[in-house]
Amino acid sequence: MKTQLYSFWRSSAAFRVRIALNLKGVDHQIIPIHLLKNGGEHTSAEYTAKNPTRLVPLLIEGDHAIHQSLAIIEYLEETHPNPPLLPKHLIDRAWVRALAMDIAIDVHPIGNLRVLRYLMKNLGVSAENKDIWSRHWMMLGLENLEKQLSSDSRVGRFSFGDQPGLIDACLVPQIFNALSAKLDMKTYPTLMKIFDECMTLPAFIDAAWEKQIDAEGLNPSIPPKE
Amino acid sequence: MKTQLYSFWRSSAAFRVRIALNLKGVDHQIIPIHLLKNGGEHTSAEYTAKNPTRLVPLLIEGDHAIHQSLAIIEYLEETHPNPPLLPKHLIDRAWVRALAMDIAIDVHPIGNLRVLRYLMKNLGVSAENKDIWSRHWMMLGLENLEKQLSSDSRVGRFSFGDQPGLIDACLVPQIFNALSAKLDMKTYPTLMKIFDECMTLPAFIDAAWEKQIDAEGLNPSIPPKE
Repeated sequence: MKTQLYSFWRSSAAFRVRIALNLKGVDHQIIPIHLLKNGGEHTSAEYTAKNPTRLVPLLIEGDHAIHQSLAIIEYLEETHPNPPLLPKHLIDRAWVRALAMDIAIDVHPIGNLRVLRYLMKNLGVSAENKDIWSRHWMMLGLENLEKQLSSDSRVGRFSFGDQPGLIDACLVPQIFNALSAKLDMKTYPTLMKIFDECMTLPAFIDAAWEKQIDAEGLNPSIPPKE
Repeated sequence: MKTQLYSFWRSSAAFRVRIALNLKGVDHQIIPIHLLKNGGEHTSAEYTAKNPTRLVPLLIEGDHAIHQSLAIIEYLEETHPNPPLLPKHLIDRAWVRALAMDIAIDVHPIGNLRVLRYLMKNLGVSAENKDIWSRHWMMLGLENLEKQLSSDSRVGRFSFGDQPGLIDACLVPQIFNALSAKLDMKTYPTLMKIFDECMTLPAFIDAAWEKQIDAEGLNPSIPPKE
């Protein structure tokens, strides 16, 4: 059976894994899980049985189901070592993992759909304050990344050297969110340079929002690049 | 130079790394960074220069500084493979990483000190609602973990088999938080059985809140075990 990925077009976590699968050339099938329609397809009994956390993405390999985007990417790195998404040297590996986690742990979960919903529905936070919240954590995270990447000699065409890797797979989806939230991206010149470089590659282009089979409309929320 | 860990006694992320260092028997020195005193010592120019994300923990090895608890633990796993904190088989490794991330990504960051502060200070959320928020994400996460661990044959004395590992290093600090928030832990019998097992081991006991050099008072927030 072909590898399957349960995915939602706008999910950053699913987007990361789509990039990794493409970079490694793993033949796979995307199964869309809509996080809004039908009361959220991720909450169905069928999906919950596969993934008790009710989140996307979920990778299916034969009898096995693997959740958590970074755990999936580490698994792909171990099962399909080439091309590598992590460097060889141990200190570099730690640095790459840490920067990927700066996004996946300290930015993304705080602005996730379910969190924003809870803020509004259960804490009575206004739509305006919800946006301020979401932008605050994104800006803080991107600022930290800009600081780290702009001053590190390991950065090349991509976040680590001249081959795309784990940081890039986390950075690009986060920048899609930032563009959608209309953040001022001029503040992050290093990140945008890397983003632009990534978006010349089919692995990233094909993983992007608008290329997904479940993408809706023309995504007017993505402003055209200047 | 001895390995150093910048740590705060109540930080779950630092607690995870303290457990990992102890389990692997890595000789190290703890350097306390107080997240509240002096306007937050993690915001000092000196600490920011070492760790631009201004979070704990931070591991110093010679000239290298490594941040992000899970990146540090993966680094320790690669530099000090014995005893292993991750299983051998690739599917099991993925499962262990995913469950560790269920805590480190989908529970902990949402209830982090800086997030709770922002909720109250910037969004005007009441102290009562802040606690409801924090308990909600913890309960959801622990419930998911209980579901996954109670039905998996890989669970033994510890989360994976009969040796403590990465899931345990993430679970125990989260349970300290849950006990401190006075959640009803009877709902999580599998997690509590593993927690009790972990807390018989010096590696966990010595990493706990009350054993830290920067621990304050008698931690009346930890209710005595029934």
